[in-house]
Amino acid sequence: MKKVEHIGIAVKNLSASNELFTKLFGAVPYKEEEVQSEHVITSFFQLGDTKIELLEAGTPDSAIAKFIEKRGEGIHHIAFEVEDIYAEMERMKQEGFILLNDTPKEGADNKLICFLHPKSTNGVLIELCQEINSTF
Amino acid sequence: MKKVEHIGIAVKNLSASNELFTKLFGAVPYKEEEVQSEHVITSFFQLGDTKIELLEAGTPDSAIAKFIEKRGEGIHHIAFEVEDIYAEMERMKQEGFILLNDTPKEGADNKLICFLHPKSTNGVLIELCQEINSTF
Repeated sequence: MKKVEHIGIAVKNLSASNELFTKLFGAVPYKEEEVQSEHVITSFFQLGDTKIELLEAGTPDSAIAKFIEKRGEGIHHIAFEVEDIYAEMERMKQEGFILLNDTPKEGADNKLICFLHPKSTNGVLIELCQEINSTF
Repeated sequence: MKKVEHIGIAVKNLSASNELFTKLFGAVPYKEEEVQSEHVITSFFQLGDTKIELLEAGTPDSAIAKFIEKRGEGIHHIAFEVEDIYAEMERMKQEGFILLNDTPKEGADNKLICFLHPKSTNGVLIELCQEINSTF
């Protein structure tokens, strides 16, 4: 694992939270993006080498809606950048971690991603991610 | 705010979690430290420009013990490095964020720190921190 690529934060209202985090960081989000496969609308702030991703549920049955219903708004996941997502997924399986998807899927921000089940990682939802351009 | 300095993760058993995250990251913690003022025992992993801090409660009445009792193990806080913690605390107050301490206190890893109440930050416990050597 190379670095913390981003931290995902579940919010109820992206526009209100964009305003809140703009005040907090003293900087505006550099982009917004809808990720249809995940049923979320996202915005990104850059802080040094790491991004903060705000996530609003796009549909009532999205994972973000369920997360907020259960735990309220807050930190949702940490994403780590990896060099070779296929190799890392294989290594994780060998180490006993539970993968939430068998093959990488397309996430926000031009990434191939895979989540690990928090049950196997001390309650932390972890995302592995790799820039798509770096593989193809 | 300059960057994500570290992400704090609440764990029940530091030694077991050190082992788990060593497998996950493919790297060992570079230090362990007891922070008596916060009643926690911590360990640190370096990932790129950011650290992962594991936190085990040192006493049953520590904030970490209460967090785990209420929400289980998982991500506890995000710490952002600031250049001038006094100025940032003043700016936060002006912006309407709620500070959990009026003056900076000494945290782990040679830092002056201040927490913001998650009520004012979308459910995210945020720490401002500044390296002590950079001020004195």
